[in-house]
Amino acid sequence: MRFIHTADWHVGKKLHGFDLLEDQLYIFQQLKNISLDKKVDAIVVAGDIYDRSLPNEQCVQTVNQLLEELNLQAKLPLFVINGNHDSAVRLDTGSQWFDATDFYLRTSFAQAFEPVVFADVQFFMLPYFEPQEARNYFEDQEIATTAQAVKRAVKEMQKLFLPDKKHVLIAHFFAAGSTKSASETLLEVGGLSPVGTDCLEIFDYVALGHLHDKNALKHPNIKYSGTPLKYSLAEANSQKGVWLVDTKEQTSEFIALEPKHDVKVLKGAFADLTEPSFVATINRDDYIGIELTDTQIIVNAMERLRSCYPKTLSLKRVNWSDDLLGFTPKEELKHLEPIELLQGFFEEVNQNAISQKQLQWAKQALIDVQKEV
Amino acid sequence: MRFIHTADWHVGKKLHGFDLLEDQLYIFQQLKNISLDKKVDAIVVAGDIYDRSLPNEQCVQTVNQLLEELNLQAKLPLFVINGNHDSAVRLDTGSQWFDATDFYLRTSFAQAFEPVVFADVQFFMLPYFEPQEARNYFEDQEIATTAQAVKRAVKEMQKLFLPDKKHVLIAHFFAAGSTKSASETLLEVGGLSPVGTDCLEIFDYVALGHLHDKNALKHPNIKYSGTPLKYSLAEANSQKGVWLVDTKEQTSEFIALEPKHDVKVLKGAFADLTEPSFVATINRDDYIGIELTDTQIIVNAMERLRSCYPKTLSLKRVNWSDDLLGFTPKEELKHLEPIELLQGFFEEVNQNAISQKQLQWAKQALIDVQKEV
Repeated sequence: MRFIHTADWHVGKKLHGFDLLEDQLYIFQQLKNISLDKKVDAIVVAGDIYDRSLPNEQCVQTVNQLLEELNLQAKLPLFVINGNHDSAVRLDTGSQWFDATDFYLRTSFAQAFEPVVFADVQFFMLPYFEPQEARNYFEDQEIATTAQAVKRAVKEMQKLFLPDKKHVLIAHFFAAGSTKSASETLLEVGGLSPVGTDCLEIFDYVALGHLHDKNALKHPNIKYSGTPLKYSLAEANSQKGVWLVDTKEQTSEFIALEPKHDVKVLKGAFADLTEPSFVATINRDDYIGIELTDTQIIVNAMERLRSCYPKTLSLKRVNWSDDLLGFTPKEELKHLEPIELLQGFFEEVNQNAISQKQLQWAKQALIDVQKEV
Repeated sequence: MRFIHTADWHVGKKLHGFDLLEDQLYIFQQLKNISLDKKVDAIVVAGDIYDRSLPNEQCVQTVNQLLEELNLQAKLPLFVINGNHDSAVRLDTGSQWFDATDFYLRTSFAQAFEPVVFADVQFFMLPYFEPQEARNYFEDQEIATTAQAVKRAVKEMQKLFLPDKKHVLIAHFFAAGSTKSASETLLEVGGLSPVGTDCLEIFDYVALGHLHDKNALKHPNIKYSGTPLKYSLAEANSQKGVWLVDTKEQTSEFIALEPKHDVKVLKGAFADLTEPSFVATINRDDYIGIELTDTQIIVNAMERLRSCYPKTLSLKRVNWSDDLLGFTPKEELKHLEPIELLQGFFEEVNQNAISQKQLQWAKQALIDVQKEV
């Protein structure tokens, strides 16, 4: 069979405060059209449907309509699990009615051991879970980490393998060897023990969700799809898309998604970036990160940039480095007293030593400030 | 056909801070057992499934499991609309898959004109709506009130009447002539224009939700089911239950529900109510409103009552009336100055006039208090 592997939709996600729902609706239509054009047999969504466990009504409506459109109208079978951003309980609403139309929504650890046979494939669906759920399920208090739990779970799954079927795992976790991008928080990635890919080798394909870059893991048949849209400036140069997996041919092809509005980083001098002929080359509705190479102060830089690029997300001065200021490297700064820092800064900026009188004023000012605290 | 008419479940409701989920689970089992015992053809739920538009996960799980148990396991057809307490969008999740198993969940005004034919009945389902939705649907800005909207909607429904079927309306609004109980807020009831029952007479049965007392409306075939549990002390003497409607025989029979824990008002002297032999006659887990007839002060009354009745909801001193105090009636009190109020109170309580010295102290105390404010 052939299926689309996508994940990490994060419906409701905001990018530096900008609502992305319109962009999400646009990309979902593309996802649907690709699925129909390629005549796939199913769509696999490996978790993080929503950006929050308590999505607002607009997000709920968006997801409800999308799933209805894909499954009931376009008759596309769906395999969906929850990610760590979803509320398993809320997402699960209606799931027991969905199987009837080949919409397999799974949100509990136990369901990982009730594989769904579809065409030539046996699908194992392992939703995002906490190690506690694995400990309860296996009645084994030794399971401390996600990695241990997955290893154990895979062992159980293997016992259920039908020899005449291909075996596909759909899961949502942090796999070892993968690298993270900026739209996953450090805490989320770091908080999970990475799962070694070794134990996953028994599957013909592993459709992963959790990390936002398709290149987070380099493996021929264990893959992250990544997000359908760029959800951070750090992903400006990432190619977003979906995997088209063929279980018979044992191939996977990456199909690019083209967003309605791109996320871009523009780097250059302020004068160049605000030059009308250059501005005209950029879609006004794209999400822009600005990196200014200028070294002098620019008054109202953000405001002036936003008049050119309304969706300017951030402004970075790339040449305002430590080197430029010719100042003590950061590590050493940590050990300096406030008055020493001030003295150093004064002397660097003025190219003159601080006078005794000035030093006295500074000391008194510091004392006064500390009193107030 | 024969169906159960229930409404206003308010899953997640708290009674004076006490969580009622356990009581609700218990009563839902009874509802299910009655439905099975009576071999009904369907259950009608006329809105307010949840107590809040954003129910917590535990409530979502409770409702999901209940509906699954009733519809998928017990194979009971369901007709459900949203009430004003539900979020129509959230409640609607999965609805398009539910029809396949005779679970008709309707949450939009437009759906009122897509009746469901089931057995010998044509069901019209009018969920709770705002007049704006009716204005939009009918493209008629003249519709200002719920009453006008319902009148107009019923007219449209009548055009769709199949002559060889019975006609049942399921709706959630405030019907004229009905009286409210304390668990609906005044604002909710008062904010809606009452809908006259005249226009509803064309239906063989009208299954209403919104008001919490089955006796809120006295009409042979236009009925509120009321809540399945007592949701306020004012309902202590109400009989809760469901209607068993027979569309062929044109009858409706009220079937009582027996709660796990009752809501009761105990009225009497403190000594009597705390007398161990009396306390022993009361279920410790019942929800109790206390009305003390004593006229003297009782130290730590609430604490001492709670040691007898852990779920004491409130404490009222029924004989501490204006009459007992022999004091100025309330309307006149409004026009008195603080010092006059104090003087009057002192003289009533002490049965003696206040002295000039005392009056001076009181005045000074009032001045000091006002300074602090």
